[in-house]
Amino acid sequence: MCFDCYRPVWSWRCQAGKCVKIAAKSVNATAGEKLLSKNTCKLTCAPYGTLWPKPSGYIQVSSDVVSINPNSIYFQSMPGQVLPPKTNALLHELGQVFIRNIFLNLKGEPALKDPGHNFVVTVVLARTNVTTFTQDTDESYELTVSKEKNSAVTALVNAFTYPGAARGLETLLQLITYDDVTGSLIVPSAVGITDRPAYPYRGVLLDTARTFFSVEALKRLIDGLAASKMNTFHWHITDSHSFPFELKSHPQLTQYGAYDKKKVYTHDDIRSLVHYAQVRGIRIVPEFDAPAHVGEGWSYIAQPGDGPEDYVVCFHAEPWQSYCVEPPCGQLNPVSSKVYNVLSDIYSEMHELFDSDLFHMGGDEVNMNCWNSTESIVNWMYEKNMNRSDDDFHELWNSFQQEALKRLEAINNGKQKPIIWTSTLTTEARLKRFLDPKKYIVQIWTKGDDQTIANLVNNGYPVIFSNYDALYFDCGFGAWVGEGNNWCSPFIPWQKVYENDPMKLLSSLGVDATPATRRLVLGAEAALWTEQADEHNADSRLWPRVAALAERLWSDPQEGWESAEHRFLHHRERLVQRGLRADSVEPEWCYQNEGSCYLTT
Amino acid sequence: MCFDCYRPVWSWRCQAGKCVKIAAKSVNATAGEKLLSKNTCKLTCAPYGTLWPKPSGYIQVSSDVVSINPNSIYFQSMPGQVLPPKTNALLHELGQVFIRNIFLNLKGEPALKDPGHNFVVTVVLARTNVTTFTQDTDESYELTVSKEKNSAVTALVNAFTYPGAARGLETLLQLITYDDVTGSLIVPSAVGITDRPAYPYRGVLLDTARTFFSVEALKRLIDGLAASKMNTFHWHITDSHSFPFELKSHPQLTQYGAYDKKKVYTHDDIRSLVHYAQVRGIRIVPEFDAPAHVGEGWSYIAQPGDGPEDYVVCFHAEPWQSYCVEPPCGQLNPVSSKVYNVLSDIYSEMHELFDSDLFHMGGDEVNMNCWNSTESIVNWMYEKNMNRSDDDFHELWNSFQQEALKRLEAINNGKQKPIIWTSTLTTEARLKRFLDPKKYIVQIWTKGDDQTIANLVNNGYPVIFSNYDALYFDCGFGAWVGEGNNWCSPFIPWQKVYENDPMKLLSSLGVDATPATRRLVLGAEAALWTEQADEHNADSRLWPRVAALAERLWSDPQEGWESAEHRFLHHRERLVQRGLRADSVEPEWCYQNEGSCYLTT
Repeated sequence: MCFDCYRPVWSWRCQAGKCVKIAAKSVNATAGEKLLSKNTCKLTCAPYGTLWPKPSGYIQVSSDVVSINPNSIYFQSMPGQVLPPKTNALLHELGQVFIRNIFLNLKGEPALKDPGHNFVVTVVLARTNVTTFTQDTDESYELTVSKEKNSAVTALVNAFTYPGAARGLETLLQLITYDDVTGSLIVPSAVGITDRPAYPYRGVLLDTARTFFSVEALKRLIDGLAASKMNTFHWHITDSHSFPFELKSHPQLTQYGAYDKKKVYTHDDIRSLVHYAQVRGIRIVPEFDAPAHVGEGWSYIAQPGDGPEDYVVCFHAEPWQSYCVEPPCGQLNPVSSKVYNVLSDIYSEMHELFDSDLFHMGGDEVNMNCWNSTESIVNWMYEKNMNRSDDDFHELWNSFQQEALKRLEAINNGKQKPIIWTSTLTTEARLKRFLDPKKYIVQIWTKGDDQTIANLVNNGYPVIFSNYDALYFDCGFGAWVGEGNNWCSPFIPWQKVYENDPMKLLSSLGVDATPATRRLVLGAEAALWTEQADEHNADSRLWPRVAALAERLWSDPQEGWESAEHRFLHHRERLVQRGLRADSVEPEWCYQNEGSCYLTT
Repeated sequence: MCFDCYRPVWSWRCQAGKCVKIAAKSVNATAGEKLLSKNTCKLTCAPYGTLWPKPSGYIQVSSDVVSINPNSIYFQSMPGQVLPPKTNALLHELGQVFIRNIFLNLKGEPALKDPGHNFVVTVVLARTNVTTFTQDTDESYELTVSKEKNSAVTALVNAFTYPGAARGLETLLQLITYDDVTGSLIVPSAVGITDRPAYPYRGVLLDTARTFFSVEALKRLIDGLAASKMNTFHWHITDSHSFPFELKSHPQLTQYGAYDKKKVYTHDDIRSLVHYAQVRGIRIVPEFDAPAHVGEGWSYIAQPGDGPEDYVVCFHAEPWQSYCVEPPCGQLNPVSSKVYNVLSDIYSEMHELFDSDLFHMGGDEVNMNCWNSTESIVNWMYEKNMNRSDDDFHELWNSFQQEALKRLEAINNGKQKPIIWTSTLTTEARLKRFLDPKKYIVQIWTKGDDQTIANLVNNGYPVIFSNYDALYFDCGFGAWVGEGNNWCSPFIPWQKVYENDPMKLLSSLGVDATPATRRLVLGAEAALWTEQADEHNADSRLWPRVAALAERLWSDPQEGWESAEHRFLHHRERLVQRGLRADSVEPEWCYQNEGSCYLTT
C-alpha cells in the first residue's frame, strides 16, 4: 500500500479561531478554498497561533504566509553597530542555534518543493553590554517580519538586552513551520509583536544529588527552558545522597561523595553548561544546601587530628526518621569552625564557576534532634548557657546562617543575592528576627494557601513561589520508602500548574495586589526532586508542565487553561521536535480535532 | 581532577545476604578479603543474586566467578541433534540476540583487562518443532554452568520448547556481568537452576490507536518482555481514535483512519514484529475491539448505494458523554450485514499476519444509548418485536457477538481461542446465557475485589487478570478531558503490582484455590492505554512495573515486595542497559546501600 503516492486526504479549515479537519475532497475549490496544511492553519488561525507563551503586548500575525529558504538565512546584528566581543560571540552562537532549530522542522520530511526566499534576520540590542542576568534584566523585545515585493523576507528583533533578543528569536522560531501541502518552510508574511514577561524570575529546579544527570541531559533542560521563555535553571547540585560537584579544594569530598567516579561535574563541565545556558539567555543559579542536606563524602575530608564531629554529624544515623526527613541523614556541625572554612571553599569555587547574580543557600529541613544528640554541639550550648529548647536550636541555626552568609559575602562582595527556603526559620515569630528582608529572597515551598506566604510578603521579603501543591513535579508516584504513593501525591496536572497564579494566591491570603506587593513576587519555579527521576524519565516529569508555568509567568493570562489548551498541545509537539521526551497529555485525536476533547461540568 | 587515575575507592562486602558498601581502604586484606565490585557482589551474595524474576525451582549459584571472553562465545544446539529448519533459524537469531545483549555489559567500560575464557552455550530442545505458543506451551528449562580445569566455560540450557529455551537463555544472560575491579566479564563458575512459570499467560497490552507507536518502540517493548520472562504482547491495535492497521481489503479505512500516512502498520511491519517477538519467545495477540471502540476511517469505506448507518453509528456524536465513554464516539451497527463482511475481512488479514493461538475480540464499553438513537437499529428491533430495554440491547449485543464469533471461527477454523473483556455482558445474570465458558477466555478489568471475578471462575471461565486498580498503568496522571486527575487515579506503585496476587484476590472473594480454579486463572496482563502515553514516555509508564508483574506471575512469590526490592532495583538498571527508559523508583543511594531505604510502620 503506497500512502506516499496518494495526494493529501485531509485539509484544515480555519473556522472561528479553530482549525477543523476536513476531507481534502471536501475543500470548496469553487469558493476559492485551497488545501491548507495542519501546521499552516494552526500557525495563522487563532489569535496567538502556535506561540507559547503567548505574547503579553501587541500582536499582529498575517494569515498570508511566505516561504523561506533554510539554506539562505542571513543572521546579523544591526549593520553598523559594533558589539562588544563577548556579546558578538554569544549572538553568533545563538544565530547558529536558531538556524539549527529551524532545520528541525524539516526532519523526516521530503525535500522542499519550494526552495523559498532569502531570509534576513537582524538583531538590534539597545544595551549591547548586558549579556548576563541581574534581578532587573529587561527581557522585552519587539519582533517584526515583512516581505517587500522582489526581496528577501526580513525579520527584525529589537531588544534592550541579550536575553531579550533570545526571547524574541524564540518567538520568531515559533512562527516558522513546514507546510506539507506546499512542501515549503513558511513564515507569516507580516508580523508585529511587542512582548515582555510578567515576572522576572521564571525557573526550574533540578536536583542532581539524589540522581546524577549527564551534562547532555542538563543541556536538554536548558533547551526546554529557552523554548518556553523561562530564564533560570536552579541547580540543586549536592545533597546528603551524593556530592557530584568537583571541589578542587577538598577533592575527597567529590571522590567519596559522588555515586561513581563517572558521576561528577567537573569545573569544565560546569563552565560548558554555564556558557550553553548564557548563549540561550538563561542563567544558572547554584544551590549549596546547608546546614541540613549534606552527608556522603564529608567523612573523608578529615585531616589528621580532626574529630568525628568536626564536619557532618548524624551521618547515616538510625533510625533515620529520628534524625532527618529521608535517608541518609546528615547535617553540618554549626559549632565547628572547620565547617565554615569548607563552606568558604565551596562558595568560592561555585562563585568562580557560576557567575550568577543569585546564590541559593538552601536552609530547609534542619532536624533539631540531630544536633541535640551530638555531644560537641550540646556541650557548646551548655557553655554558652543556652537551653536545648526548640528556640535555642533555632538560635543556633541562625548563628550558622549568619556565619555562612558572612563567608558568602566575603567571597562575592555582596553581589549575589542569597535565596533561602521557607522553613521553621521563616515562621512569623522568627522571620524578622533572623532574616533581613533587604538581604534575602525567600523561596516558598509550603502549600499555596499557607499563611507563611502572606507573612513574607507583608514583611517585605522578595519571594519565589514553589508551592509544592502546584509546582513539585515529583509528586504523585509511588513511595520510595515503604509503600503506597509518595508524600505529596497526587500527580499535579498541567491545568493546575497553569492556574497557579501567585497574585491570586496572595489575594486569597488577604494580601492586596499593590505595586509594592507585586514587585516582591519575583516569580515562580517548578521543582523536580529526583528520588525517583533520572535522565530517562525526567523529561516527561518536567515537560510540558514547565511550559504551563512558563505561560503563567510570562503572559499572566487572565483566561483559564481551556483557552490555552490547543497552543499547549502544539507546544508539547514543539518540545518533542527539539529533542525533549515531553509527557503526552492528550491523544493525537484531540490535537487534530480542536475543541472536541471537552468536558461539560 | 583525574578520577580515572584513582584506584577504586569503594568495595562491596557480602554480609547476611546484603552487599555493604565499604571504603576500599577498609578492605581487610590480612583476613584474606579482596576488593569486590558492586556487580559481582550483587550477582553472588543473596540467594537469587540479581535474577529477575527469581527462579521457581531449584537454584544453586556459586560465589566463585570465572571470566568469559565476549569474542569467543560459541552458541549451538545440541551437537548431533538435527533441528527443523525454522527452529534452527530462530535459534540462530536468538543466539545473536544473546551475544549482543552480553556486549551491552561492556558499554562505556574500558577495554577488558582479562580477556576471559572461551564460553560454550548449548541449547537442547526436547520438542524441536514447538516454536510458537499454544495455551499449554511448556516454558520450563534447566540451566547449568560449569568450568572444568583448562577448558572453556560451558553453559547448558535444557528446555522442552523453544520459548522455554528463550527463558533459560535470559537467565544465563542475567548471570553475566562486568566486574570493574578485575576488568573482566564474569559468570558464576557453577550454576544449577530448574525453573518454570507459575502462570501460562503473562502479558502487556499496548494501545496503538489513541497514540501511534513506531515499530522500533514496539520492538523495545518486546525486548523488555523478554528480559522479564513475560510471554505476550496484547496489541490493541485499533480504536475509535485511529485505525493504523493496514487493511488491504478496505484501504480507505486505513487511509482515512490513520492519524497520518506515516502512522500506519503495514503488513510488512507486522510480519517483522511477529518474527521479532517469536525469536524472543514472545507471542503477539491481536485485538480487534468491537462493536464499540470503532470510529475514524469507517465513514470512508462506504460504496455507492451504502447508507450513512451501514457501518459505524454515533460517530462523532455530541455531546459525547451521551454516546460513549470518551471522545470520539462510534459503534458498529449490529443490524447491518455489511458490518460483518468487513469484520470477516479484518479477521482474515489479522489471522494471516499474526498466527496466534489467541484472538482478542474486545467487547467492552458498549453504549446502549448510541444504538437506541440510531434509526436503522431501532427500526430493526421494532420489526423483531423487541423492546428497547437494557436487556433488549444486550440481546442485540449478544447477536452481534455470536455473528462476529461465527465469522472469526470461519476464518481460523476455531483454532484461535477468543478473549473478551468483562462488561455488562459478563454480569452474573447474562454470563452463562450469552457466553460459552468452553469457548471464551474473559479478561478482567474490574477492580480486584469485584464479585464479577468470582462469578467468572465459579462458572468455569478461564480468566486473565487486568484488574484496573493494580494493572492499569495509565492511572494517576492528569485528566485529558476536563481537569483534575484521571479516572483511575492514583498512580499504581510497583509494590502494589507485585502484590496483586490473582489467587489471593480470588480467595478474598470466597473462591477456594482448588486445582480446577487454579487452572482457570491463566495469568495477568498490565495495560497501557495511551490517551496520555506515546513512545517518549511509555517506557517509563510500563517499566519497571511490568517487571513487578512478571515476578508475580513467573515466581508466585510468597514473600512481600520488601524481599524483592534490591533485585528489582537491579533489574531496573538492566532494563535501562537494554535500551528501555524505565522509570526510576529509588535514588541510586538506596541501590548502593541495600536495606537503608526502609520505613518502619
